[in-house]
Amino acid sequence: MAEQKATNITWHGGTVTPENRQALLNQIGCCVWMTGLSASGKSTIGVIVEQLLLEKHKTAFRLDGDNMRMGLNKNLGFTAEDRTENIRRVGEVSKLFVDAQVITVSSFISPYKKDRDAVRALLGDKFIECYVHVSIEEAEKRDPKGLYKKARAAVAAGKGMGFTGVDDPYEAPEKPELTIYTEKVTKEEAAHQIVAFLESKGFLKA
Amino acid sequence: MAEQKATNITWHGGTVTPENRQALLNQIGCCVWMTGLSASGKSTIGVIVEQLLLEKHKTAFRLDGDNMRMGLNKNLGFTAEDRTENIRRVGEVSKLFVDAQVITVSSFISPYKKDRDAVRALLGDKFIECYVHVSIEEAEKRDPKGLYKKARAAVAAGKGMGFTGVDDPYEAPEKPELTIYTEKVTKEEAAHQIVAFLESKGFLKA
Repeated sequence: MAEQKATNITWHGGTVTPENRQALLNQIGCCVWMTGLSASGKSTIGVIVEQLLLEKHKTAFRLDGDNMRMGLNKNLGFTAEDRTENIRRVGEVSKLFVDAQVITVSSFISPYKKDRDAVRALLGDKFIECYVHVSIEEAEKRDPKGLYKKARAAVAAGKGMGFTGVDDPYEAPEKPELTIYTEKVTKEEAAHQIVAFLESKGFLKA
Repeated sequence: MAEQKATNITWHGGTVTPENRQALLNQIGCCVWMTGLSASGKSTIGVIVEQLLLEKHKTAFRLDGDNMRMGLNKNLGFTAEDRTENIRRVGEVSKLFVDAQVITVSSFISPYKKDRDAVRALLGDKFIECYVHVSIEEAEKRDPKGLYKKARAAVAAGKGMGFTGVDDPYEAPEKPELTIYTEKVTKEEAAHQIVAFLESKGFLKA
């Protein structure tokens, strides 16, 4: 993992407490970490969750894999090392949003268990691992961006592209807080399941 | 600057609009970018600004140089390249918070003009450059963490440590939105100046 490089640094704490922020927003910050194969529906479900929370007057924010790769993580590719750094960074950003008491919906393939576990360690009981389940067969059938087709072609040509589920592993969560079976429920139902979970755990009020 | 590495990525937009978020929080997100020498008072003033905003029922969040170097930027040091990457990352995180319509108080020495200008380009009219001014003589006199002393000793020993104002340049803002003269006002007065500026520009209501 990333080693601490800078020395001569001092934590600068504030006077505004987590409780102050929770009372202001009438909610408790947490991170719904959506993990799953490409085309599982992570981002789309995340968008609906954010909308449902707005309708409940809750402050939510989405961090999305592809979007982050156009900004904060634009200097990262898809090697195992870069994937780990990608998840490390978005884990740290998720923590900042959770510290701000925002309900953070983080949608990342995040295929490696050790990377997700590092985020869990960072966020503690504010980390809600949500496994957006789809079989590889169904994901390849959906293939909305044609990426599986591209990956299979690359493998057939003997090149490979390190695509999760094709020529890079997806390590499924063993004990996720939530599993969404996207071949059994609609995206709207999935989003409602997530919001209901947040409600049941007390995150939607201070 | 950072080159875009990943291909095969698609922006995933949401349905919650900036206006939805502004109405919910009754404010307009922006970034108060506090730049200045070490010991100028950036972090301390930022803490007071955050507290004052809470008292006005505003959602604010601080991003602080040293704190970020213990998390997101722990794998960066103080070479010119690392400083640039440090500011690039916190600029991107500031943008995420501003997109969430949070009033973001970003306190970073950020000594290089080109790095600050890159953040300005990213944030547009939501970027409020606040020059926390102190003379190098006064900063060295304050030296709360003994860092100037350490840096002078390193230079005297012929080693150097790339410390801003001692053996690394501080490029002062040319046209900051705000300048705080910390040798003329107290930290509390400085914080009130910043909040008054936000109020006058309409950021504290939707």
